[in-house]
Amino acid sequence: MLIARGHHAGQETFGVVDGDGFAPVRDQPFERVVPAGPQVPLADVELLSPTRPSRVLVVLGGFLPPDLSVRPPDAEPVLFPKVIPWHLGHDGEVVKPAGLSGSLDMEAELALVIGRKTRSVTAEQGWDSIFGFTVYNDFTAAEFLPARDFYTAKSMDTLGSCGPWITTDLDRERIEAGIEIIGRVNGEQRQRGTTKRYKFDPGEIVAHASRFVTLLPGDIISLGTPPPAAPVLPGEVCEAEVEGIGVLRNHVA
Amino acid sequence: MLIARGHHAGQETFGVVDGDGFAPVRDQPFERVVPAGPQVPLADVELLSPTRPSRVLVVLGGFLPPDLSVRPPDAEPVLFPKVIPWHLGHDGEVVKPAGLSGSLDMEAELALVIGRKTRSVTAEQGWDSIFGFTVYNDFTAAEFLPARDFYTAKSMDTLGSCGPWITTDLDRERIEAGIEIIGRVNGEQRQRGTTKRYKFDPGEIVAHASRFVTLLPGDIISLGTPPPAAPVLPGEVCEAEVEGIGVLRNHVA
Repeated sequence: MLIARGHHAGQETFGVVDGDGFAPVRDQPFERVVPAGPQVPLADVELLSPTRPSRVLVVLGGFLPPDLSVRPPDAEPVLFPKVIPWHLGHDGEVVKPAGLSGSLDMEAELALVIGRKTRSVTAEQGWDSIFGFTVYNDFTAAEFLPARDFYTAKSMDTLGSCGPWITTDLDRERIEAGIEIIGRVNGEQRQRGTTKRYKFDPGEIVAHASRFVTLLPGDIISLGTPPPAAPVLPGEVCEAEVEGIGVLRNHVA
Repeated sequence: MLIARGHHAGQETFGVVDGDGFAPVRDQPFERVVPAGPQVPLADVELLSPTRPSRVLVVLGGFLPPDLSVRPPDAEPVLFPKVIPWHLGHDGEVVKPAGLSGSLDMEAELALVIGRKTRSVTAEQGWDSIFGFTVYNDFTAAEFLPARDFYTAKSMDTLGSCGPWITTDLDRERIEAGIEIIGRVNGEQRQRGTTKRYKFDPGEIVAHASRFVTLLPGDIISLGTPPPAAPVLPGEVCEAEVEGIGVLRNHVA
């Protein structure tokens, strides 16, 4: 099943995507899917971020470096919050803020969406807390990274995009076997990686994130980008693609 | 004027506090105060955090160190997001999470509340964006500070408290002249400082916070704690007091 959110006929609504159709459903459908009206053409829906999360976390350094095939035994996940009241959706416009002297980078990522209240779970239980997966573009103002000021680097207006939808059909086996994550600028491939090279699997990440914190339905954890990130310029189009989900496209202004 | 939020007769509502009374008002009263019912006794209201912010920022190292009387010329404010879906209010219960090996610290602070949409303003305009001031207790799990993991240290469930209300009557002259911030554990004073020793004034902090980000009505920026922070233990009562606002009390479980 594919869950999206969009504007249609002046309304903002969640919906189930089926082929070329979009069937509206009531409120946040992460715990229960309740139909809420007749199907409309997907082409008539302006897609928004498919969730309105209370918390968005991004995994820093989520991928094994090229010279390692297993993570160091003392490695721990590093999570950082992304604080953006409105996430972009598919075809949303990223604005490179005036006053940035360095580059604005795209970071194509696979992200998990939490399906239920989750606190202090094991990695096995962590998998059960996942409602589905989506594509996330963790736009980052690179000039703040050397000082490790991840808040400024990652939480500027418009620097987060999510979509086009959440799939509930991407299973654990497939992610562990490896699905591809691709980043493109103006159609040209700039990033490529596979989930086989994650340091931590999604269940382990959920377990770690829930140690001291209650995760809520709709919360997002984006699982890290295959390095390096790709600089984008005003006027360019960037696409983050995850195999088995789809392509999240954004325009840079 | 004092703005609070509370539970009364099964309803959650904002209200204006006047002596022993609480006069309900409609929704978030940061842009406009609209009465919404007869006054009730304040004693019958269970106070909640007086705002539901979309963003909470805390200033790290907000006070001049004891050996300095002016900030270094190249100093810049350092802001960090606090990501807690539900803030405690006056008399709310802080829970020291199982699994913490180090101390849980209280940090008594003065916090500003944003009154209008604010982006890329000057320090002068920053003052105009402030709706009022409240007391903030920036509870922190100290064991994560050496690794500078401020997210884990500051965003655990229940580790943020705000209240008992927002005052609109604390003016710039008074804050610049110096108002006292006091932290007490079980009635004993553990923290004391004055706003005269801020590195940056509230207007400068708003200007800095709004460089790349749109601040929204109700957003909180907590202005830093007079060092050192004070460890608290389960069973203890902590109070953060700011002169001209009041006392924010919380119980540690």
